[in-house]
Amino acid sequence: MRRFLDLEHLDDEAIARLLKSASDLEARPIRDTLKGRVLGLVFMNPSVRTLTSFQSGMAQLGGSSWVVTPGAASWGFETRDGVVMNEGSAEHVREAIPVLSQYADALGLRCFAGGTDLAADLRDPVLASVSGLASVPFVNLESAINHPCQALADWKTLDDLGVPRAGGRFVLSWAAHPKPLPLAVPSAVVTMAARRGMDVTVLRPEGFGLPPEVMQTAVQAAGFSGGSVQETDDRAMALEGAHVLYAKSWQAPTAYGDPNAEGELRAKHTDWCVDENWFTPAAQDARFMHCLPVRRNIVVRDEVLDGPRSAVVQQAGNRLHVQKAVLLEMLEDSDQENHQ
Amino acid sequence: MRRFLDLEHLDDEAIARLLKSASDLEARPIRDTLKGRVLGLVFMNPSVRTLTSFQSGMAQLGGSSWVVTPGAASWGFETRDGVVMNEGSAEHVREAIPVLSQYADALGLRCFAGGTDLAADLRDPVLASVSGLASVPFVNLESAINHPCQALADWKTLDDLGVPRAGGRFVLSWAAHPKPLPLAVPSAVVTMAARRGMDVTVLRPEGFGLPPEVMQTAVQAAGFSGGSVQETDDRAMALEGAHVLYAKSWQAPTAYGDPNAEGELRAKHTDWCVDENWFTPAAQDARFMHCLPVRRNIVVRDEVLDGPRSAVVQQAGNRLHVQKAVLLEMLEDSDQENHQ
Amino acid sequence: MRRFLDLEHLDDEAIARLLKSASDLEARPIRDTLKGRVLGLVFMNPSVRTLTSFQSGMAQLGGSSWVVTPGAASWGFETRDGVVMNEGSAEHVREAIPVLSQYADALGLRCFAGGTDLAADLRDPVLASVSGLASVPFVNLESAINHPCQALADWKTLDDLGVPRAGGRFVLSWAAHPKPLPLAVPSAVVTMAARRGMDVTVLRPEGFGLPPEVMQTAVQAAGFSGGSVQETDDRAMALEGAHVLYAKSWQAPTAYGDPNAEGELRAKHTDWCVDENWFTPAAQDARFMHCLPVRRNIVVRDEVLDGPRSAVVQQAGNRLHVQKAVLLEMLEDSDQENHQ
Repeated sequence: MRRFLDLEHLDDEAIARLLKSASDLEARPIRDTLKGRVLGLVFMNPSVRTLTSFQSGMAQLGGSSWVVTPGAASWGFETRDGVVMNEGSAEHVREAIPVLSQYADALGLRCFAGGTDLAADLRDPVLASVSGLASVPFVNLESAINHPCQALADWKTLDDLGVPRAGGRFVLSWAAHPKPLPLAVPSAVVTMAARRGMDVTVLRPEGFGLPPEVMQTAVQAAGFSGGSVQETDDRAMALEGAHVLYAKSWQAPTAYGDPNAEGELRAKHTDWCVDENWFTPAAQDARFMHCLPVRRNIVVRDEVLDGPRSAVVQQAGNRLHVQKAVLLEMLEDSDQENHQ
Repeated sequence: MRRFLDLEHLDDEAIARLLKSASDLEARPIRDTLKGRVLGLVFMNPSVRTLTSFQSGMAQLGGSSWVVTPGAASWGFETRDGVVMNEGSAEHVREAIPVLSQYADALGLRCFAGGTDLAADLRDPVLASVSGLASVPFVNLESAINHPCQALADWKTLDDLGVPRAGGRFVLSWAAHPKPLPLAVPSAVVTMAARRGMDVTVLRPEGFGLPPEVMQTAVQAAGFSGGSVQETDDRAMALEGAHVLYAKSWQAPTAYGDPNAEGELRAKHTDWCVDENWFTPAAQDARFMHCLPVRRNIVVRDEVLDGPRSAVVQQAGNRLHVQKAVLLEMLEDSDQENHQ
Repeated sequence: MRRFLDLEHLDDEAIARLLKSASDLEARPIRDTLKGRVLGLVFMNPSVRTLTSFQSGMAQLGGSSWVVTPGAASWGFETRDGVVMNEGSAEHVREAIPVLSQYADALGLRCFAGGTDLAADLRDPVLASVSGLASVPFVNLESAINHPCQALADWKTLDDLGVPRAGGRFVLSWAAHPKPLPLAVPSAVVTMAARRGMDVTVLRPEGFGLPPEVMQTAVQAAGFSGGSVQETDDRAMALEGAHVLYAKSWQAPTAYGDPNAEGELRAKHTDWCVDENWFTPAAQDARFMHCLPVRRNIVVRDEVLDGPRSAVVQQAGNRLHVQKAVLLEMLEDSDQENHQ
């Protein structure tokens, strides 16, 4: 494995192997395997979990890591091809990424969606361009439309919680938020849940349906795994017998790139804040999941986050284990000769 | 030891053990003890010494560290309980700290005083909340009202300099400054000096007396150690026979949270800038101490800082040694099983 | 070697030894030599290559590093002597650097030119002051008027490319840019090229001649090595038979510190953007070099950067190897007793 861009690029065996390796690493976290090896982390956007779990992960495997923040402590990075660079950014990724590939044994990139052109964001142009420029193994640290580290960690969490694959009822629900958020996590999670073989329901208000391209990928994944995917705005129906309610806000795809229209649409649904009542029709021990960070009492009430249903801390804990599995798979494979 | 929040939480034996360990680490700095272990450092405020001495300390002990800066490269952290998070901060410490506890073997937090509500700052609410949320050993990297790493380093410096405990005359003097500064260092230092058994004088202009709660803690510490604590605005009297003059600016507790009144009060005392004349009544080899950073020729004249009395660089050097002792005590104690 | 401030401080034997060591490190990058040793990096300005190549370099040698960014995550640093510090900066380098010297086995500093006073920038006052305050080995990470890590990496690249020393024709050309850039790289590179024994031509429009002090240093270096140095604004003549075209923008020394006049002067020469036509009179396999970051289609056209002439990625790759050679030379030499 030289690229970890999208869980859907992996076959079932590869996913099973990573999950097994992650559990082994959870049980015995400290190794010496990556001694002298370096992970380069490029963050075009803020991070807490991804930053620190990758840094701890490399350290626990015997290696180390560094962080580049273009536009802050480092030069701004231009990502468009053919551009005349007379504006803000001093450096082009066409130089920066090959250069950093010479200093690191693997690279990771966080590059959020532009949020103005849905078709462009669905193509994930920065991730595609940058990962193509890297001459070392490469990890998607959350891109415009994907977050495979989160998806794989969530898969492990579902396994750890004993949520059934076949017959498991998984609800991804839109939630309120003061800001228009990217589609990366909901897109990654709906496909992961379908791929895991569960019966997946996307619960969202009118206008917040995930883009057809995203839903189609999830439906296809369900087709292979024996799961199913449906959409609804009927909360009671969606949550009937649910094992998991995964909450996440995202901007309205129907008003993408029109902040005023999108804001008005979002403002109508501030009541989409998960509380204990949401779980009335669900399975008795139904769990609450969220990728974090989460705005308390906007997305979800304290009573849920602080209660026994919440799996959010466990989800984040699994980020560390699955990412270490990914790093090991990438760097044990890679010829050390590549590293100069 | 699972928490290092306040020197006053430690008994005499524990302090003696840390000081002994710090001297051992000064003599033989590089170890392999914390191989594979990770320290997570959360800085809500700027840092030079604390940041770099903890990073060097972990590295010299065989481990590593990472840094989170909420509101800069990382999401802003909300610290108030029960709040509706519709404003700036995207993440609550109620999630962030348990999550980071899964990635690190120990955590440290810097959280300066709010500076508007003295009663609140004296309760040190952010430190209390965050340290309570951590499931791994925890270090106070300077909080609203305390700075135990500085206090312990200063204790070691006093030992290194041969300043007597019983009969040692220690003056903590207020000094001029263009900005209203927190009470953390003066509060930590006055209690440390009293605890060490010295005769402590707080020298400050009218209106700048340390809060009664702080003085009471120092008086109590002196009661146990055989030291004493007094306050005065009479410079000559304070410095009579002094072994140490420890300068530090702090905002006027009598005008706390009223920037205009506080600024006017502070502006009256720009002549409180330590120069060689201050030392006329002191012991001949009296030393100058300051926690750094220090504004030259505002707090203290170049002639003092660049002269033989100054112990400020040595004080900062001891930060490294005592902090490594704290880390060793915390992490050698801690069950490695805690770390996952 | 305790200081790496300027390539011209090294004799031929020392340069040859560093280049040999760099090639060895390129062939066998991972060592254990600097286990437990720490490099402190102080960046007063942004960085990509310098930051990450030093962090990777220390890690590959078994050590570690940390980063201080004064004025961002750390207190601002005052560098002027004798100043009354009632303005922005909270900390003076007269304390900060001795303090950091206690935490690190070596220090590096990046401090760009002020850009307003040419005579001052030519004296490199911040580098001189800070390097004098460090009690541990010290590396110039690019100063007002020098960049020895870049110069040494470029020397290695010229060797790797097989560019002849005697008889090698090296052209340093000014190029267009939207901003007035420092003189550090052109100054370091012109002297390096002369020192390497090549025939060096500085190609630049009227008003952009490098300062006499810089040219004089280069001429002196050529005198020792058997090379030569000339200046011209005639592109065809400069590039006749050239083996290397090294492009770099810099602000007009004739209008230094006068942004309006300098901007007007620079605006006249936006056609100084290197394209394939520039190479018509050059040697057939002439190479293009640049220190990066480079503004595409302002300084140089995509056709050159993306074509076979470009050595820019290789240049940056050599930063890692030569810097590791410098670190080894400094830290294998240094008495470990210095480190406390």
